[in-house]
This record gives sequence, C-alpha cells and structure tokens, in this order.
Amino acid sequence: MTTTTQQTGVTVIGLGDMGSVLAHVLLDKGYTVTVWNRRRDKAAALVARGAMLATDVVAAVGASAVTIICVTDYAISHGILHTAAVGAALSGRLLIELSTGTPADARHGERWAAAQGIVYLDGAILATPRQVGRADTPIFVSGDRAAYERGVDILQALAGGLQYMGEAPGAAAAWDLGFLSYLFMGALGLLHAARIFETEGIPVDGLGNMIAQVSPGIGEMIQGMALAIHQNDFEQPESSLLICALTMDLLIRQAAENGINDEMPRFFKGLYQRGLDAGYGGEKFAAMIKVLR
Amino acid sequence: MTTTTQQTGVTVIGLGDMGSVLAHVLLDKGYTVTVWNRRRDKAAALVARGAMLATDVVAAVGASAVTIICVTDYAISHGILHTAAVGAALSGRLLIELSTGTPADARHGERWAAAQGIVYLDGAILATPRQVGRADTPIFVSGDRAAYERGVDILQALAGGLQYMGEAPGAAAAWDLGFLSYLFMGALGLLHAARIFETEGIPVDGLGNMIAQVSPGIGEMIQGMALAIHQNDFEQPESSLLICALTMDLLIRQAAENGINDEMPRFFKGLYQRGLDAGYGGEKFAAMIKVLR
Repeated sequence: MTTTTQQTGVTVIGLGDMGSVLAHVLLDKGYTVTVWNRRRDKAAALVARGAMLATDVVAAVGASAVTIICVTDYAISHGILHTAAVGAALSGRLLIELSTGTPADARHGERWAAAQGIVYLDGAILATPRQVGRADTPIFVSGDRAAYERGVDILQALAGGLQYMGEAPGAAAAWDLGFLSYLFMGALGLLHAARIFETEGIPVDGLGNMIAQVSPGIGEMIQGMALAIHQNDFEQPESSLLICALTMDLLIRQAAENGINDEMPRFFKGLYQRGLDAGYGGEKFAAMIKVLR
Repeated sequence: MTTTTQQTGVTVIGLGDMGSVLAHVLLDKGYTVTVWNRRRDKAAALVARGAMLATDVVAAVGASAVTIICVTDYAISHGILHTAAVGAALSGRLLIELSTGTPADARHGERWAAAQGIVYLDGAILATPRQVGRADTPIFVSGDRAAYERGVDILQALAGGLQYMGEAPGAAAAWDLGFLSYLFMGALGLLHAARIFETEGIPVDGLGNMIAQVSPGIGEMIQGMALAIHQNDFEQPESSLLICALTMDLLIRQAAENGINDEMPRFFKGLYQRGLDAGYGGEKFAAMIKVLR
C-alpha cells in the first residue's frame, strides 16, 4: 500500500489560492494527495476531502513520488526546500516548481535540484485559480525531457492545455513573462481607451465586445510583428513607424481636448520618438525593437 | 450622362497611400471617380485607369454626388475644404471625411458642414492600404443616419466590415482611437516580450504564434475588463491588482537579470503602485481605471 501511494501520490506544498486549487483538482481526479503549508489551518478543507497533512516538509516530500510546489515566489520556495534534509528526501523524485518567477529563478532551482539528484521541472500556470483543471487551461513547463515524461499525466490533470517549452529550465518562465508583458500592456492600453469612451459618453462594454470580436485579427498582426523581429526585417511596412507615431500624437491631443490623463500616450510617444530620431520612421513598427536592444 | 455621373460618381480628395487605394478600389468596383490632389502627378496611375482629374477643389466636389476626403490630418483637410467656394459647391451633397483625427476634429468638421448645408459623415479606416476593399475590412463611420444611408453603398465597396457607430459625429474617431490605444500598447508590450525572448535565446516568432493562437481568449479577458469598467464593479477578482502588480515586479527583476531595458515595466509599475496606494490591491485589475479618472 505504501508503495502504491508513493507511485500514484502527489505532494502539494503551498496552499494559497492557487496551491489549494491544485490540490483540490488532484483529489477530484483520484490522486492520493499529501499537503503541507506553513499555516496548517489552510489544509482543513483538503484534509476533510481525504488529503493527508504532513507534519513537516521532509515528511511531505517523502510521502509521494512527485512534489508540486506553488508559493508566492521563488524566495519563499527556496526557503522551504533548500535544506539538506529536504534535498535528501527529494533525491530521485520529481519536483515540479510552479511558483511564479524569472528564468534565472528557474535556473537557480534547477541547479540546486541537480546537485541533490532531484528530477526537476519548472512551470508557469497561465490561468486564474478557477480555470485550473479545464481542458484548455495552459500550463507551460520546461526542463529535462525525461522529467517531463514523469510529470506529464499529473500536469495534464491540472491543465489540459499543457505545453512543453523545451529542455532549458528557464524557458517556461520566459514564455510566461513574455505573454504577460503583452497581455498587461494591452490591458493598460484598454484603460486609456476606456477613458476616451467614458469622456465621449460611449458605453465601455461595447469597446470590449468589439475587441473580443476582432481579437483573431489582432493576434495575426502581433504574429506578423514577432516574425519581423525574428527575421530582423523591417522593410516594406504596411503602416510605417511614422504613421504609428502620429497615432500617439493624436491620442495626446485627444487627451488634452477631453481633459483626461495623457501619461500613457506620452510615455509611448517618447519611445517612438527615439525610433524616429534613429531614422526608423519609414520602417515597420516592429523596428522599434532596435530602440530597445 | 452628366446627371448619371453625378448620381453614381465619387470624388476622392487626397491621393496619398490610403487615398489613392480608395480611388483604385472605387474604380475596380465600377464607380465613376474624380480625383484631386495638391500634387497632380500623384493622380497619373488613376487617370490612366479612367479617373477624371479635376482642375481645382471646387470642380472636384462639384463633379460627384459624394466626396471622400482622406488626407494626413484634419488641419490639412479643413485647409482644403473650408472655403466659401468649396462649401457652396458641396452644399446638398454628401461629404465623407476619412482623414485621421480626434472626436473634436470630427465635431468641428460636422459643425462647418452643417452650416453650409452639407450632408456629413465622419469615418475611420481601421486597416492598412492593402486591406482596403476586402469583405472584412473595417471602416467605422458616424453622423446623421440619413447621411449614412446615402453613403453606405460606397463605403461598403471600400470596406465590407463597415460599422455605423451612431449619430454623434465624434463616435467613429473615438472608437478608432480607443481601438488603437489598445492595439499599440499591446504591440509595445510585445516589444518588451521580444527582448525577453531574444536574451533567453528563444525564437521570437514562436511567441507571435502563441499569441495568435490564444488571442480569442485574450479578447475575452479584455471584454471582461471593459464590462467591469462599464459596470464600475471591481469586486471578487479572479486575479487581483496586487497579483498583477507582482508580475510587473517580476518583469523589472528579469530585466535586471538579463540586462535589458526596463522602462516599460517600470512605467507600468508606477501606475499600478498608485492603484495599490489607493487601496485597490484586493480588487480587479480593471480597478486601475479609478487611478486614471
């Protein structure tokens, strides 16, 4: 029985909003789940559903063939895991790091794990807690391919949209941060757009509906931009950097006309201006990457 | 014959990259096209295809029942049109303003047109020149509904994705600017993301492919944000403003680790920080609108 538990069991360390959902979904899918959290009371609902509460971290990681850790950041994660006793208990087992961090955090985690003989995967959950466990939920993971094969079933139980990003341990974090950079800056652009609508007396929900409708086309434009950057070819623009910069001028002027905050268009115009000053005005918008390199 | 020409003819003023495409597409679709441009040589290819070149602006607008103007900005447009002679020649006819401008520009144009008895529509072309004339090309127009009905056939010949945004003359410009605010700020987010990929040695084209793939989901998230702003309800976040702000901290730290420009995440973190300082950390990301109001 103990052997079976170790083969099919999963330990989840960290029972915040995301970690507790991971443990609940694994219980839903029939896994034997062991949990540990600094505050033991956070485990109550899981224990009531059949999860085992470990007395300490060494016991927690020793209870299962696979340990998932999902805490606020890698500083906390490494504070919990990076002791000689935990390292020894994890040796030969699979550790899946799902805390949010940078590629360098992931490389640091992988180096420590390798030194202890721990099989290591680093991942990023591109979803909110309530989206975990769905057929299309994306989790990105990277690391040794054999490690991925040991973890794939459990990870797919958590996220049907699981994607393996390659052997470099920092790859999943890089993909996560790249995606979030695009997502959040667009989201801030929506805030400025919402102020335009509010001050023009146009309902803001309509703007969201329109953007949802044309999103596939926006995705294609972004895909084209990324390809231009990848190929480092910014010639023959359909819409030149100069034309794009004029749009920012228009946003700045409209903000003055309607008395709204103009910080965002001003900040971006400042960036664009460097591209224009560098002589990229007749090239594609994506030529702005040269300003940032 | 002259009467027929006036009923089915269209005058296009401004033969830059966009204006000349508009005239070519109208010729393609069988319209009788009269053109005028400050530099007459820009009309050569159109004249070779059968367009008539007017000797001056008064003759140009007098040749057709409908005039479309598409120049760099409204200052240029108003410089061309806002004379007593042109106003008199346009009186009773339809003027469609497709230059790029702000809602206030459109209102200014409409007031002048109304004073001359000109039927007026204001529009924005949400496409590059090579996309004009397609079944899904979006042009937004706004203004008097009867004016829209007089222009709808011609506009649909130019853009199958024509959308009427209502009677307020500034509405089309507001929709255009709102859309561009979202689009360009996301595009700048992609630039930062591309630097992450470049310095991590991950091909940037893959990032574009991924974003294209998940764009419908991104559109839904933006739709949800816009709805929250519309309803002014920021409670019960799936991902709190605090969690979103932590992502910017991560982007700033990653930029330091990889030695890349951190201006964008720093600028956005500064905005987020005001939301956190105002006590919105536990609310939805969309609560940031309160910082901008």
